[in-house]
Amino acid sequence: MSNFNARLKEAAERVNNGLDALLPRPQGPEARLVEAMRYAAIDGGKRLRPFFTLETGRMFDADETWLLRTGCAIECVHTYSLIHDDLPCMDDDDLRRGRATLHRAFDEATALLAGDALLTLAFELLAEPATHPDPQMRCLLIAGLAKAAGAVGMVAGQVADMAGDEIGSDLIAVTRMNRLKTGALINFSVDAGATIGCASEAERTALTRYAHDVGLAFQMVDDLLDAEGVVRDTGKAVRKDKDRGKVNFVTVLGADATRERVGMLASQAKRHLAQFGPRGRVLHDAVDFIVQRRH
Amino acid sequence: MSNFNARLKEAAERVNNGLDALLPRPQGPEARLVEAMRYAAIDGGKRLRPFFTLETGRMFDADETWLLRTGCAIECVHTYSLIHDDLPCMDDDDLRRGRATLHRAFDEATALLAGDALLTLAFELLAEPATHPDPQMRCLLIAGLAKAAGAVGMVAGQVADMAGDEIGSDLIAVTRMNRLKTGALINFSVDAGATIGCASEAERTALTRYAHDVGLAFQMVDDLLDAEGVVRDTGKAVRKDKDRGKVNFVTVLGADATRERVGMLASQAKRHLAQFGPRGRVLHDAVDFIVQRRH
Repeated sequence: MSNFNARLKEAAERVNNGLDALLPRPQGPEARLVEAMRYAAIDGGKRLRPFFTLETGRMFDADETWLLRTGCAIECVHTYSLIHDDLPCMDDDDLRRGRATLHRAFDEATALLAGDALLTLAFELLAEPATHPDPQMRCLLIAGLAKAAGAVGMVAGQVADMAGDEIGSDLIAVTRMNRLKTGALINFSVDAGATIGCASEAERTALTRYAHDVGLAFQMVDDLLDAEGVVRDTGKAVRKDKDRGKVNFVTVLGADATRERVGMLASQAKRHLAQFGPRGRVLHDAVDFIVQRRH
Repeated sequence: MSNFNARLKEAAERVNNGLDALLPRPQGPEARLVEAMRYAAIDGGKRLRPFFTLETGRMFDADETWLLRTGCAIECVHTYSLIHDDLPCMDDDDLRRGRATLHRAFDEATALLAGDALLTLAFELLAEPATHPDPQMRCLLIAGLAKAAGAVGMVAGQVADMAGDEIGSDLIAVTRMNRLKTGALINFSVDAGATIGCASEAERTALTRYAHDVGLAFQMVDDLLDAEGVVRDTGKAVRKDKDRGKVNFVTVLGADATRERVGMLASQAKRHLAQFGPRGRVLHDAVDFIVQRRH
Protein backbone atom coordinates (compact mmCIF):
# COMPACT_ATOMS: atom_id res chain seq x y z
CA MET A 1 0.00 0.00 0.00
CA SER A 2 2.91 2.41 0.43
CA ASN A 3 3.20 2.93 -3.32
CA PHE A 4 -0.56 3.42 -3.45
CA ASN A 5 -0.48 6.06 -0.73
CA ALA A 6 2.29 7.90 -2.57
CA ARG A 7 0.23 7.89 -5.76
CA LEU A 8 -2.87 9.10 -3.93
CA LYS A 9 -0.87 11.88 -2.32
CA GLU A 10 0.70 12.84 -5.64
CA ALA A 11 -2.72 13.03 -7.31
CA ALA A 12 -4.07 15.19 -4.48
CA GLU A 13 -1.12 17.57 -4.83
CA ARG A 14 -1.58 17.82 -8.57
CA VAL A 15 -5.29 18.55 -8.12
CA ASN A 16 -4.50 21.21 -5.50
CA ASN A 17 -1.96 22.82 -7.79
CA GLY A 18 -4.37 22.60 -10.70
CA LEU A 19 -7.21 24.25 -8.77
CA ASP A 20 -4.81 26.86 -7.40
CA ALA A 21 -3.90 27.84 -10.95
CA LEU A 22 -7.52 27.76 -12.11
CA LEU A 23 -8.71 30.05 -9.30
CA PRO A 24 -6.43 33.10 -9.42
CA ARG A 25 -7.25 35.77 -6.86
CA PRO A 26 -8.95 38.73 -8.55
CA GLN A 27 -9.19 42.33 -7.46
CA GLY A 28 -12.47 44.09 -6.78
CA PRO A 29 -15.73 43.09 -5.15
CA GLU A 30 -15.63 39.49 -6.34
CA ALA A 31 -12.29 38.79 -4.61
CA ARG A 32 -14.25 37.49 -1.64
CA LEU A 33 -16.12 35.06 -3.89
CA VAL A 34 -12.91 33.55 -5.23
CA GLU A 35 -11.45 33.39 -1.72
CA ALA A 36 -14.51 31.39 -0.73
CA MET A 37 -14.17 29.11 -3.76
CA ARG A 38 -10.49 28.58 -2.89
CA TYR A 39 -11.25 27.94 0.79
CA ALA A 40 -13.61 25.14 -0.15
CA ALA A 41 -11.80 23.73 -3.16
CA ILE A 42 -8.11 23.82 -2.32
CA ASP A 43 -6.24 21.74 0.22
CA GLY A 44 -9.07 19.60 1.45
CA GLY A 45 -10.16 16.05 1.00
CA LYS A 46 -8.65 12.92 -0.42
CA ARG A 47 -9.31 13.89 -4.06
CA LEU A 48 -10.54 10.38 -4.62
CA ARG A 49 -12.64 11.28 -7.66
CA PRO A 50 -9.85 12.94 -9.68
CA PHE A 51 -7.58 10.13 -8.49
CA PHE A 52 -9.94 7.66 -10.16
CA THR A 53 -9.95 9.69 -13.36
CA LEU A 54 -6.15 9.96 -13.40
CA GLU A 55 -5.47 6.33 -12.59
CA THR A 56 -8.13 4.94 -14.91
CA GLY A 57 -6.80 7.06 -17.75
CA ARG A 58 -3.24 5.99 -17.00
CA MET A 59 -4.26 2.37 -17.59
CA PHE A 60 -4.75 3.40 -21.22
CA ASP A 61 -1.76 5.76 -21.41
CA ALA A 62 -4.02 8.78 -21.76
CA ASP A 63 -2.55 12.26 -21.71
CA GLU A 64 -1.98 13.42 -18.12
CA THR A 65 -2.98 17.02 -18.77
CA TRP A 66 -6.34 16.01 -20.18
CA LEU A 67 -6.95 13.70 -17.23
CA LEU A 68 -5.93 16.30 -14.66
CA ARG A 69 -8.14 19.04 -16.07
CA THR A 70 -11.07 16.66 -16.18
CA GLY A 71 -10.29 15.57 -12.61
CA CYS A 72 -10.22 19.20 -11.48
CA ALA A 73 -13.62 19.79 -13.10
CA ILE A 74 -15.02 16.76 -11.26
CA GLU A 75 -13.54 18.00 -7.98
CA CYS A 76 -15.19 21.41 -8.55
CA VAL A 77 -18.54 19.63 -8.84
CA HIS A 78 -17.83 17.51 -5.77
CA THR A 79 -16.83 20.58 -3.77
CA TYR A 80 -19.92 22.53 -4.85
CA SER A 81 -22.11 19.62 -3.73
CA LEU A 82 -20.47 19.59 -0.30
CA ILE A 83 -20.87 23.35 0.10
CA HIS A 84 -24.57 23.28 -0.75
CA ASP A 85 -25.10 20.10 1.29
CA ASP A 86 -23.65 21.79 4.39
CA LEU A 87 -25.93 24.86 4.15
CA PRO A 88 -28.45 25.47 6.96
CA CYS A 89 -31.42 24.56 4.73
CA MET A 90 -29.76 21.21 3.95
CA ASP A 91 -27.64 19.36 6.53
CA ASP A 92 -26.70 22.51 8.50
CA ASP A 93 -23.17 21.31 9.22
CA ASP A 94 -20.48 23.34 10.99
CA LEU A 95 -17.51 21.11 10.25
CA ARG A 96 -16.06 19.79 6.99
CA ARG A 97 -12.63 18.32 6.39
CA GLY A 98 -11.67 19.37 9.93
CA ARG A 99 -12.44 23.05 9.37
CA ALA A 100 -15.44 25.35 9.58
CA THR A 101 -17.84 24.77 6.70
CA LEU A 102 -17.85 27.51 4.09
CA HIS A 103 -21.00 29.27 5.26
CA ARG A 104 -19.57 29.32 8.80
CA ALA A 105 -16.18 30.65 7.68
CA PHE A 106 -17.76 33.22 5.31
CA ASP A 107 -21.54 33.62 5.20
CA GLU A 108 -24.49 31.80 3.71
CA ALA A 109 -24.92 33.95 0.60
CA THR A 110 -21.23 33.71 -0.25
CA ALA A 111 -21.30 29.95 0.26
CA LEU A 112 -24.34 29.58 -1.97
CA LEU A 113 -22.74 31.66 -4.72
CA ALA A 114 -19.30 30.04 -4.40
CA GLY A 115 -20.98 26.66 -4.91
CA ASP A 116 -22.82 27.98 -7.95
CA ALA A 117 -19.60 29.39 -9.37
CA LEU A 118 -17.67 26.13 -8.84
CA LEU A 119 -20.36 24.13 -10.64
CA THR A 120 -20.27 26.60 -13.51
CA LEU A 121 -16.46 26.57 -13.59
CA ALA A 122 -16.46 22.79 -14.01
CA PHE A 123 -18.28 23.06 -17.33
CA GLU A 124 -16.16 25.99 -18.46
CA LEU A 125 -13.01 23.93 -17.84
CA LEU A 126 -14.30 20.96 -19.79
CA ALA A 127 -15.41 23.11 -22.73
CA GLU A 128 -11.96 24.61 -23.28
CA PRO A 129 -9.55 23.11 -25.85
CA ALA A 130 -6.88 22.60 -23.15
CA THR A 131 -9.00 19.77 -21.74
CA HIS A 132 -8.89 17.79 -24.99
CA PRO A 133 -8.11 18.71 -28.58
CA ASP A 134 -11.22 16.95 -29.89
CA PRO A 135 -14.40 19.00 -29.22
CA GLN A 136 -16.47 15.83 -29.62
CA MET A 137 -14.63 14.36 -26.62
CA ARG A 138 -15.18 17.56 -24.63
CA CYS A 139 -18.91 17.42 -25.35
CA LEU A 140 -19.03 13.77 -24.24
CA LEU A 141 -17.34 14.70 -20.96
CA ILE A 142 -19.65 17.68 -20.40
CA ALA A 143 -22.80 15.66 -21.10
CA GLY A 144 -21.52 12.85 -18.87
CA LEU A 145 -20.68 15.17 -15.99
CA ALA A 146 -23.98 17.03 -16.29
CA LYS A 147 -25.96 13.78 -16.23
CA ALA A 148 -24.00 12.49 -13.23
CA ALA A 149 -24.40 15.76 -11.33
CA GLY A 150 -27.94 16.81 -12.23
CA ALA A 151 -31.60 15.97 -11.76
CA VAL A 152 -31.17 12.30 -12.70
CA GLY A 153 -27.91 11.96 -10.73
CA MET A 154 -26.37 13.60 -7.70
CA VAL A 155 -29.06 16.25 -7.15
CA ALA A 156 -31.76 13.56 -7.28
CA GLY A 157 -29.78 11.69 -4.61
CA GLN A 158 -29.65 14.78 -2.43
CA VAL A 159 -33.41 15.20 -2.74
CA ALA A 160 -33.91 11.56 -1.75
CA ASP A 161 -31.48 12.00 1.14
CA MET A 162 -33.36 15.07 2.41
CA ALA A 163 -36.64 13.15 2.20
CA GLY A 164 -35.31 10.80 4.92
CA ASP A 165 -37.39 7.69 5.48
CA GLU A 166 -40.15 9.02 3.21
CA ILE A 167 -38.23 7.32 0.38
CA GLY A 168 -38.68 4.00 2.16
CA SER A 169 -36.42 2.47 4.73
CA ASP A 170 -35.48 -0.72 2.94
CA LEU A 171 -32.22 -1.71 1.32
CA ILE A 172 -33.48 -1.02 -2.20
CA ALA A 173 -34.41 2.58 -1.40
CA VAL A 174 -31.12 3.26 0.40
CA THR A 175 -29.07 1.65 -2.36
CA ARG A 176 -30.85 3.68 -5.02
CA MET A 177 -30.39 6.92 -3.07
CA ASN A 178 -26.67 6.31 -2.68
CA ARG A 179 -26.15 5.26 -6.28
CA LEU A 180 -27.46 8.69 -7.18
CA LYS A 181 -25.97 10.79 -4.39
CA THR A 182 -22.38 9.54 -4.42
CA GLY A 183 -22.35 6.70 -6.96
CA ALA A 184 -23.12 8.75 -10.06
CA LEU A 185 -20.12 11.07 -9.69
CA ILE A 186 -17.73 8.26 -8.73
CA ASN A 187 -18.95 6.33 -11.77
CA PHE A 188 -18.31 9.32 -13.97
CA SER A 189 -14.83 9.82 -12.47
CA VAL A 190 -13.82 6.32 -13.57
CA ASP A 191 -15.69 6.52 -16.86
CA ALA A 192 -14.11 9.86 -17.76
CA GLY A 193 -10.66 8.26 -17.48
CA ALA A 194 -11.77 5.34 -19.64
CA THR A 195 -13.38 7.70 -22.17
CA ILE A 196 -10.31 9.93 -22.46
CA GLY A 197 -8.20 6.75 -22.69
CA CYS A 198 -10.38 5.46 -25.54
CA ALA A 199 -11.03 2.19 -23.70
CA SER A 200 -12.94 -0.52 -25.57
CA GLU A 201 -16.61 -1.14 -24.82
CA ALA A 202 -15.72 -4.31 -22.87
CA GLU A 203 -13.14 -2.43 -20.82
CA ARG A 204 -15.59 0.38 -20.09
CA THR A 205 -18.24 -2.10 -19.00
CA ALA A 206 -15.83 -3.77 -16.57
CA LEU A 207 -14.74 -0.40 -15.20
CA THR A 208 -18.34 0.78 -14.81
CA ARG A 209 -19.08 -2.32 -12.74
CA TYR A 210 -15.94 -1.71 -10.70
CA ALA A 211 -17.00 1.90 -10.08
CA HIS A 212 -20.48 0.80 -9.10
CA ASP A 213 -19.17 -1.60 -6.44
CA VAL A 214 -16.53 0.81 -5.19
CA GLY A 215 -19.09 3.61 -4.95
CA LEU A 216 -21.45 1.53 -2.83
CA ALA A 217 -18.63 0.23 -0.62
CA PHE A 218 -17.40 3.80 -0.19
CA GLN A 219 -20.82 4.95 0.98
CA MET A 220 -21.23 1.99 3.34
CA VAL A 221 -17.89 2.78 4.96
CA ASP A 222 -19.03 6.40 5.23
CA ASP A 223 -22.17 5.28 7.02
CA LEU A 224 -20.12 3.01 9.34
CA LEU A 225 -17.78 5.90 10.15
CA ASP A 226 -20.75 8.15 10.80
CA ALA A 227 -22.19 5.59 13.21
CA GLU A 228 -18.93 4.65 14.91
CA GLY A 229 -16.34 7.23 14.03
CA VAL A 230 -15.04 10.08 16.11
CA VAL A 231 -14.92 13.69 15.01
CA ARG A 232 -11.13 13.78 15.30
CA ASP A 233 -10.73 11.08 12.66
CA THR A 234 -13.45 12.03 10.22
CA GLY A 235 -13.07 15.81 10.36
CA LYS A 236 -16.84 16.21 10.29
CA ALA A 237 -19.79 15.72 12.60
CA VAL A 238 -20.60 12.09 13.32
CA ARG A 239 -23.74 10.13 14.23
CA LYS A 240 -25.69 12.79 12.41
CA ASP A 241 -27.71 10.50 10.17
CA LYS A 242 -29.27 8.67 13.10
CA ASP A 243 -29.88 11.89 15.02
CA ARG A 244 -31.70 13.34 12.01
CA GLY A 245 -33.85 10.32 11.38
CA LYS A 246 -32.11 9.68 8.07
CA VAL A 247 -31.86 6.20 6.65
CA ASN A 248 -28.51 4.80 5.59
CA PHE A 249 -26.95 1.38 5.21
CA VAL A 250 -26.17 1.04 8.92
CA THR A 251 -29.64 2.10 10.07
CA VAL A 252 -31.19 -0.38 7.62
CA LEU A 253 -28.78 -3.33 7.83
CA GLY A 254 -26.96 -2.80 11.12
CA ALA A 255 -23.18 -2.41 11.38
CA ASP A 256 -22.20 -6.08 11.11
CA ALA A 257 -24.21 -6.82 7.98
CA THR A 258 -22.99 -3.56 6.43
CA ARG A 259 -19.36 -4.57 7.10
CA GLU A 260 -20.03 -7.96 5.54
CA ARG A 261 -21.43 -6.33 2.41
CA VAL A 262 -18.44 -4.00 2.18
CA GLY A 263 -16.22 -7.08 2.07
CA MET A 264 -18.33 -8.70 -0.64
CA LEU A 265 -18.38 -5.55 -2.76
CA ALA A 266 -14.62 -5.16 -2.37
CA SER A 267 -13.96 -8.69 -3.66
CA GLN A 268 -16.40 -8.20 -6.50
CA ALA A 269 -14.84 -4.86 -7.47
CA LYS A 270 -11.42 -6.49 -7.67
CA ARG A 271 -12.75 -9.30 -9.86
CA HIS A 272 -13.95 -6.76 -12.42
CA LEU A 273 -10.33 -5.65 -12.76
CA ALA A 274 -9.05 -9.16 -13.53
CA GLN A 275 -9.03 -8.63 -17.30
CA PHE A 276 -6.59 -5.73 -16.95
CA GLY A 277 -3.83 -7.76 -15.26
CA PRO A 278 -1.03 -5.69 -13.71
CA ARG A 279 -2.42 -2.52 -15.31
CA GLY A 280 -5.29 -2.68 -12.81
CA ARG A 281 -2.98 -2.66 -9.79
CA VAL A 282 -3.67 0.88 -8.59
CA LEU A 283 -7.45 0.60 -8.90
CA HIS A 284 -7.14 -2.75 -7.08
CA ASP A 285 -5.29 -1.12 -4.19
CA ALA A 286 -7.83 1.71 -4.18
CA VAL A 287 -10.46 -0.80 -3.09
CA ASP A 288 -8.43 -1.72 0.00
CA PHE A 289 -7.83 1.93 0.74
CA ILE A 290 -11.53 2.73 0.59
CA VAL A 291 -12.50 -0.23 2.74
CA GLN A 292 -9.86 0.42 5.37
CA ARG A 293 -10.09 4.19 5.56
CA ARG A 294 -10.78 5.82 8.92
CA HIS A 295 -11.99 9.14 7.48
CA MET B 1 -45.22 47.12 -32.18
CA SER B 2 -48.08 44.66 -32.68
CA ASN B 3 -45.97 42.41 -34.87
CA PHE B 4 -43.23 42.64 -32.27
CA ASN B 5 -45.56 41.63 -29.46
CA ALA B 6 -46.75 38.67 -31.48
CA ARG B 7 -43.17 37.55 -32.06
CA LEU B 8 -42.30 37.95 -28.39
CA LYS B 9 -45.34 35.91 -27.42
CA GLU B 10 -44.53 33.26 -30.00
CA ALA B 11 -40.97 32.96 -28.68
CA ALA B 12 -42.22 32.67 -25.10
CA GLU B 13 -44.61 29.89 -26.10
CA ARG B 14 -41.89 28.01 -27.93
CA VAL B 15 -39.59 28.31 -24.92
CA ASN B 16 -42.37 27.09 -22.61
CA ASN B 17 -43.06 24.14 -24.87
CA GLY B 18 -39.35 23.43 -25.15
CA LEU B 19 -38.84 23.45 -21.38
CA ASP B 20 -41.99 21.39 -20.90
CA ALA B 21 -40.53 18.69 -23.16
CA LEU B 22 -37.08 18.93 -21.55
CA LEU B 23 -38.48 18.49 -18.02
CA PRO B 24 -40.64 15.37 -18.16
CA ARG B 25 -42.22 14.41 -14.85
CA PRO B 26 -40.45 11.39 -13.38
CA GLN B 27 -41.68 8.82 -10.89
CA GLY B 28 -40.03 8.25 -7.54
CA PRO B 29 -38.50 10.49 -4.90
CA GLU B 30 -37.12 13.03 -7.36
CA ALA B 31 -40.58 13.80 -8.82
CA ARG B 32 -40.80 16.70 -6.37
CA LEU B 33 -37.50 18.09 -7.63
CA VAL B 34 -38.70 18.17 -11.23
CA GLU B 35 -42.03 19.65 -10.15
CA ALA B 36 -40.05 22.44 -8.50
CA MET B 37 -37.90 22.93 -11.60
CA ARG B 38 -41.06 23.09 -13.71
CA TYR B 39 -42.79 25.51 -11.31
CA ALA B 40 -39.91 27.94 -11.66
CA ALA B 41 -39.01 27.40 -15.29
CA ILE B 42 -42.29 27.00 -17.14
CA ASP B 43 -44.94 29.62 -17.83
CA GLY B 44 -43.25 32.58 -16.23
CA GLY B 45 -41.46 35.62 -17.45
CA LYS B 46 -41.05 37.39 -20.73
CA ARG B 47 -38.38 34.99 -22.05
CA LEU B 48 -36.45 37.99 -23.21
CA ARG B 49 -33.09 36.19 -23.25
CA PRO B 50 -34.15 33.28 -25.48
CA PHE B 51 -36.06 35.83 -27.56
CA PHE B 52 -32.78 37.64 -28.19
CA THR B 53 -31.07 34.38 -29.16
CA LEU B 54 -33.89 33.40 -31.52
CA GLU B 55 -34.23 36.79 -33.17
CA THR B 56 -30.50 37.42 -33.49
CA GLY B 57 -30.02 34.00 -35.05
CA ARG B 58 -32.94 34.60 -37.42
CA MET B 59 -31.12 37.64 -38.79
CA PHE B 60 -28.58 35.15 -40.17
CA ASP B 61 -31.10 32.46 -41.13
CA ALA B 62 -29.79 30.12 -38.46
CA ASP B 63 -31.57 26.85 -37.75
CA GLU B 64 -34.55 27.43 -35.46
CA THR B 65 -34.07 24.19 -33.49
CA TRP B 66 -30.49 25.05 -32.62
CA LEU B 67 -31.52 28.55 -31.54
CA LEU B 68 -34.44 27.32 -29.45
CA ARG B 69 -32.41 24.70 -27.59
CA THR B 70 -29.74 27.27 -26.85
CA GLY B 71 -32.42 29.74 -25.74
CA CYS B 72 -33.90 27.11 -23.41
CA ALA B 73 -30.45 26.49 -21.89
CA ILE B 74 -30.04 30.23 -21.30
CA GLU B 75 -33.50 30.42 -19.72
CA CYS B 76 -32.56 27.53 -17.40
CA VAL B 77 -29.57 29.56 -16.22
CA HIS B 78 -31.69 32.70 -15.84
CA THR B 79 -34.32 30.78 -13.85
CA TYR B 80 -31.70 29.19 -11.59
CA SER B 81 -30.27 32.63 -10.85
CA LEU B 82 -33.71 33.97 -9.88
CA ILE B 83 -34.39 30.97 -7.62
CA HIS B 84 -31.09 31.35 -5.75
CA ASP B 85 -31.43 35.15 -5.68
CA ASP B 86 -34.83 34.86 -3.97
CA LEU B 87 -33.58 32.53 -1.20
CA PRO B 88 -33.68 33.79 2.41
CA CYS B 89 -29.88 34.11 2.58
CA MET B 90 -29.94 36.31 -0.53
CA ASP B 91 -32.84 38.72 -1.22
CA ASP B 92 -35.41 36.74 0.82
CA ASP B 93 -38.25 37.44 -1.59
CA ASP B 94 -41.76 36.00 -1.35
CA LEU B 95 -43.05 37.00 -4.75
CA ARG B 96 -41.75 36.36 -8.27
CA ARG B 97 -43.61 36.68 -11.55
CA GLY B 98 -46.79 37.25 -9.55
CA ARG B 99 -46.58 33.94 -7.67
CA ALA B 100 -44.93 32.64 -4.52
CA THR B 101 -41.18 32.26 -4.97
CA LEU B 102 -39.98 28.67 -5.26
CA HIS B 103 -38.76 28.31 -1.67
CA ARG B 104 -42.13 29.62 -0.46
CA ALA B 105 -44.14 27.32 -2.72
CA PHE B 106 -41.93 24.29 -1.92
CA ASP B 107 -39.16 24.61 0.66
CA GLU B 108 -35.67 26.06 0.85
CA ALA B 109 -33.75 22.83 0.26
CA THR B 110 -35.86 21.95 -2.76
CA ALA B 111 -35.43 25.45 -4.18
CA LEU B 112 -31.66 25.30 -3.71
CA LEU B 113 -31.45 21.91 -5.43
CA ALA B 114 -33.89 22.82 -8.21
CA GLY B 115 -31.67 25.81 -9.01
CA ASP B 116 -28.58 23.59 -9.01
CA ALA B 117 -30.31 21.10 -11.30
CA LEU B 118 -31.45 23.79 -13.76
CA LEU B 119 -27.92 25.19 -14.01
CA THR B 120 -26.58 21.70 -14.65
CA LEU B 121 -29.32 20.96 -17.18
CA ALA B 122 -28.33 24.03 -19.20
CA PHE B 123 -24.90 22.58 -19.88
CA GLU B 124 -26.27 19.13 -20.56
CA LEU B 125 -28.60 20.60 -23.19
CA LEU B 126 -25.83 22.49 -24.91
CA ALA B 127 -23.49 19.47 -24.94
CA GLU B 128 -25.96 17.26 -26.82
CA PRO B 129 -25.79 16.90 -30.62
CA ALA B 130 -29.41 18.08 -30.98
CA THR B 131 -28.22 21.60 -30.08
CA HIS B 132 -25.81 21.77 -33.01
CA PRO B 133 -24.23 19.14 -35.25
CA ASP B 134 -20.75 20.64 -34.84
CA PRO B 135 -19.24 19.81 -31.42
CA GLN B 136 -16.86 22.74 -31.80
CA MET B 137 -19.89 25.05 -31.88
CA ARG B 138 -21.39 23.33 -28.84
CA CYS B 139 -18.13 23.83 -26.92
CA LEU B 140 -18.09 27.52 -27.86
CA LEU B 141 -21.64 27.93 -26.57
CA ILE B 142 -20.88 26.06 -23.33
CA ALA B 143 -17.71 28.07 -22.64
CA GLY B 144 -19.56 31.29 -23.47
CA LEU B 145 -22.50 30.48 -21.20
CA ALA B 146 -20.23 29.36 -18.36
CA LYS B 147 -18.19 32.58 -18.55
CA ALA B 148 -21.34 34.72 -18.65
CA ALA B 149 -22.90 32.85 -15.71
CA GLY B 150 -19.92 32.21 -13.46
CA ALA B 151 -17.37 33.85 -11.20
CA VAL B 152 -16.39 36.50 -13.75
CA GLY B 153 -19.98 37.09 -14.85
CA MET B 154 -23.41 36.79 -13.27
CA VAL B 155 -22.29 35.27 -9.95
CA ALA B 156 -19.72 38.05 -9.54
CA GLY B 157 -22.55 40.54 -10.10
CA GLN B 158 -24.66 38.86 -7.43
CA VAL B 159 -21.76 39.07 -4.98
CA ALA B 160 -21.35 42.77 -5.74
CA ASP B 161 -25.11 43.27 -5.39
CA MET B 162 -25.12 41.55 -1.98
CA ALA B 163 -22.21 43.72 -0.88
CA GLY B 164 -24.50 46.77 -1.19
CA ASP B 165 -22.76 50.11 -0.95
CA GLU B 166 -19.50 48.43 0.09
CA ILE B 167 -18.75 48.21 -3.64
CA GLY B 168 -18.95 52.01 -3.81
CA SER B 169 -22.02 54.09 -4.48
CA ASP B 170 -20.92 55.83 -7.65
CA LEU B 171 -22.09 55.30 -11.20
CA ILE B 172 -19.01 53.32 -12.16
CA ALA B 173 -19.52 50.75 -9.40
CA VAL B 174 -23.24 50.38 -10.13
CA THR B 175 -22.65 50.10 -13.86
CA ARG B 176 -20.00 47.45 -13.37
CA MET B 177 -22.21 45.47 -10.99
CA ASN B 178 -25.09 45.46 -13.45
CA ARG B 179 -22.93 44.60 -16.45
CA LEU B 180 -22.02 41.47 -14.53
CA LYS B 181 -25.33 40.69 -12.86
CA THR B 182 -27.70 41.06 -15.78
CA GLY B 183 -25.54 42.32 -18.65
CA ALA B 184 -23.34 39.25 -19.04
CA LEU B 185 -26.22 36.84 -19.70
CA ILE B 186 -28.09 39.27 -21.98
CA ASN B 187 -24.84 39.75 -23.91
CA PHE B 188 -24.46 36.02 -24.25
CA SER B 189 -28.09 35.62 -25.39
CA VAL B 190 -27.45 37.93 -28.33
CA ASP B 191 -23.97 36.58 -28.99
CA ALA B 192 -25.18 32.97 -29.00
CA GLY B 193 -27.60 33.82 -31.83
CA ALA B 194 -24.82 35.55 -33.76
CA THR B 195 -22.44 32.65 -33.13
CA ILE B 196 -24.92 30.00 -34.25
CA GLY B 197 -25.72 32.21 -37.24
CA CYS B 198 -22.01 32.42 -38.14
CA ALA B 199 -22.12 36.22 -38.14
CA SER B 200 -18.99 38.05 -39.29
CA GLU B 201 -16.66 39.65 -36.75
CA ALA B 202 -17.98 43.12 -37.64
CA GLU B 203 -21.56 41.96 -37.22
CA ARG B 204 -20.77 40.34 -33.87
CA THR B 205 -19.07 43.49 -32.64
CA ALA B 206 -22.10 45.61 -33.54
CA LEU B 207 -24.43 43.14 -31.84
CA THR B 208 -22.26 42.99 -28.72
CA ARG B 209 -22.48 46.77 -28.46
CA TYR B 210 -26.22 46.60 -28.99
CA ALA B 211 -26.54 43.96 -26.24
CA HIS B 212 -24.42 46.05 -23.91
CA ASP B 213 -26.65 49.11 -24.29
CA VAL B 214 -29.85 47.12 -24.13
CA GLY B 215 -28.67 45.29 -21.00
CA LEU B 216 -27.91 48.52 -19.17
CA ALA B 217 -31.18 50.14 -20.29
CA PHE B 218 -33.05 47.02 -19.17
CA GLN B 219 -31.52 47.24 -15.70
CA MET B 220 -32.18 50.97 -15.41
CA VAL B 221 -35.84 50.40 -16.23
CA ASP B 222 -35.86 47.62 -13.63
CA ASP B 223 -34.51 50.03 -11.05
CA LEU B 224 -37.08 52.66 -12.05
CA LEU B 225 -39.89 50.11 -11.73
CA ASP B 226 -38.53 49.03 -8.36
CA ALA B 227 -38.57 52.64 -7.19
CA GLU B 228 -41.90 53.63 -8.72
CA GLY B 229 -43.74 50.51 -9.71
CA VAL B 230 -46.57 48.78 -7.97
CA VAL B 231 -46.62 45.13 -7.03
CA ARG B 232 -49.63 44.48 -9.27
CA ASP B 233 -47.70 45.50 -12.39
CA THR B 234 -44.29 44.05 -11.64
CA GLY B 235 -45.37 40.76 -10.05
CA LYS B 236 -42.63 41.08 -7.47
CA ALA B 237 -41.85 43.13 -4.39
CA VAL B 238 -41.02 46.78 -5.12
CA ARG B 239 -38.93 49.46 -3.44
CA LYS B 240 -36.82 46.69 -2.02
CA ASP B 241 -33.44 48.02 -3.11
CA LYS B 242 -33.87 51.26 -1.19
CA ASP B 243 -35.28 49.47 1.86
CA ARG B 244 -32.26 47.17 1.91
CA GLY B 245 -29.67 49.89 1.51
CA LYS B 246 -28.71 48.59 -1.91
CA VAL B 247 -27.31 50.87 -4.54
CA ASN B 248 -28.82 50.97 -8.01
CA PHE B 249 -29.07 53.45 -10.85
CA VAL B 250 -31.99 55.32 -9.29
CA THR B 251 -30.39 55.61 -5.85
CA VAL B 252 -27.18 56.89 -7.47
CA LEU B 253 -28.53 59.07 -10.29
CA GLY B 254 -32.10 59.81 -9.25
CA ALA B 255 -35.11 58.87 -11.37
CA ASP B 256 -34.97 61.73 -13.88
CA ALA B 257 -31.31 61.30 -14.78
CA THR B 258 -31.84 57.53 -15.00
CA ARG B 259 -34.74 58.02 -17.43
CA GLU B 260 -32.58 60.33 -19.50
CA ARG B 261 -29.84 57.74 -19.70
CA VAL B 262 -32.33 55.06 -20.71
CA GLY B 263 -33.30 57.25 -23.65
CA MET B 264 -29.67 57.79 -24.65
CA LEU B 265 -28.85 54.09 -24.43
CA ALA B 266 -31.95 53.21 -26.46
CA SER B 267 -30.93 55.53 -29.30
CA GLN B 268 -27.38 54.24 -29.19
CA ALA B 269 -28.53 50.61 -29.23
CA LYS B 270 -30.61 51.27 -32.34
CA ARG B 271 -27.68 52.94 -34.11
CA HIS B 272 -25.61 49.75 -33.66
CA LEU B 273 -28.26 47.97 -35.73
CA ALA B 274 -28.03 50.39 -38.65
CA GLN B 275 -25.71 48.17 -40.66
CA PHE B 276 -28.28 45.36 -40.69
CA GLY B 277 -31.01 47.38 -42.43
CA PRO B 278 -34.47 45.77 -42.36
CA ARG B 279 -33.01 42.56 -40.94
CA GLY B 280 -32.49 44.42 -37.65
CA ARG B 281 -36.17 45.38 -37.33
CA VAL B 282 -37.12 43.01 -34.50
CA LEU B 283 -34.08 43.84 -32.36
CA HIS B 284 -34.86 47.51 -33.02
CA ASP B 285 -38.41 47.12 -31.75
CA ALA B 286 -37.08 45.16 -28.76
CA VAL B 287 -35.39 48.34 -27.56
CA ASP B 288 -38.70 50.18 -27.47
CA PHE B 289 -40.34 47.26 -25.71
CA ILE B 290 -37.66 47.21 -23.02
CA VAL B 291 -37.78 50.96 -22.48
CA GLN B 292 -41.57 51.13 -22.32
CA ARG B 293 -42.24 47.99 -20.29
CA ARG B 294 -44.22 48.27 -17.06
CA HIS B 295 -43.04 44.95 -15.60
